Amino acid sequence: MTIKLYCFGESGNAYKAALPLELSGLAWEAAYVDFFNGASRTEEFLEINVMGEVPALVDGDLTLTQSGAIQAYISEKSGKFAGETPEEEREVLRWVLWDNHKLSSQAGMTRFLMNFLPENKRPQEVIAFSQGRLRNAYKTLNAALEGRDWLVGNSPTNADFSCCGYLFYPEPFGFDRTAWPHIDAWLSRIEALPGYKHPYDLMPGSPADRA
Amino acid sequence: MTIKLYCFGESGNAYKAALPLELSGLAWEAAYVDFFNGASRTEEFLEINVMGEVPALVDGDLTLTQSGAIQAYISEKSGKFAGETPEEEREVLRWVLWDNHKLSSQAGMTRFLMNFLPENKRPQEVIAFSQGRLRNAYKTLNAALEGRDWLVGNSPTNADFSCCGYLFYPEPFGFDRTAWPHIDAWLSRIEALPGYKHPYDLMPGSPADRA
Repeated sequence: MTIKLYCFGESGNAYKAALPLELSGLAWEAAYVDFFNGASRTEEFLEINVMGEVPALVDGDLTLTQSGAIQAYISEKSGKFAGETPEEEREVLRWVLWDNHKLSSQAGMTRFLMNFLPENKRPQEVIAFSQGRLRNAYKTLNAALEGRDWLVGNSPTNADFSCCGYLFYPEPFGFDRTAWPHIDAWLSRIEALPGYKHPYDLMPGSPADRA
Repeated sequence: MTIKLYCFGESGNAYKAALPLELSGLAWEAAYVDFFNGASRTEEFLEINVMGEVPALVDGDLTLTQSGAIQAYISEKSGKFAGETPEEEREVLRWVLWDNHKLSSQAGMTRFLMNFLPENKRPQEVIAFSQGRLRNAYKTLNAALEGRDWLVGNSPTNADFSCCGYLFYPEPFGFDRTAWPHIDAWLSRIEALPGYKHPYDLMPGSPADRA
């Protein structure tokens, strides 16, 4: 049975699941959710995921949402990316939670407000405030990567795949990777992994389709 | 060795760790972090937690941060609150991630902006925007609790202890439990658990100390 991932190219949260899925070697296919035309709010999709969120993974009878939970499931099936020891596993979970709390949740929202809302509807005070919070997150991430190749242990884990989720996208949201040298070098290491694909190459749908 | 939890009463994120710690029966003690006087940004504290965040758990040689990672550790040690089956474990993780992403991160920030910033420094547009996002989160949580006692399985888990983190606090941030009947009943069930304590009774520090 091929794993199905409900996703769309613009979603960094979906990318956090799609990237380890692709790199794990598991058989999977993308099911396109036409988010910008409301497909994630239809009754059909809400039956798959009561939270109305992308990504959602379907593997036989199992339906699972939240990128961090999907990553843990991919690790269960593939034996990869979860950390090598109990200590590393805890550290991976810690970074995945941190990312959800401080980085991706803010970055995804800020990028949405700055790029996918009509120009006259963009809440400038909210955007400025979120960019300020995000600077603290970049600072924490950059400091953690100083002198290290990967966030946890000596190889890429779900910690890396979670935190990088929004950082490869070209749409501006206040993140400039050249300003954060340790983040920049780490993103280059991720891009150099065998089989790596950019979000718009890995998942269906991109702003280019709507241009 | 007694587990030490660095925390302060106003922190719902700390409460998410302190509540299952208390209810698990493990021996623990609170170490007060005087957050409002900058104690979480001192070099001494940053050595415990490079992210500068509360809560932080210290158990012998182990230091752990992020409430969700601390919860998982408490479950490891006590055998409680993690779910009874692999399916339930996945569901628990899913809700803990959802809470970090959509509920606690927003509720904590909004409550901070509305109560702990000087009145003339409160960003009204940000507060209104966050309250709008939070309404969607309350809606999702309320719907998930319809016809259920607990978010996952038939007993309280870390899913419940994560999602309730900010919902017992008296300071206004736009949440009115009487407006969400299934959330309200669930909060009452948590309050009725043997050994339950309110955040300001469980952890040191509260607005009353500074009044």
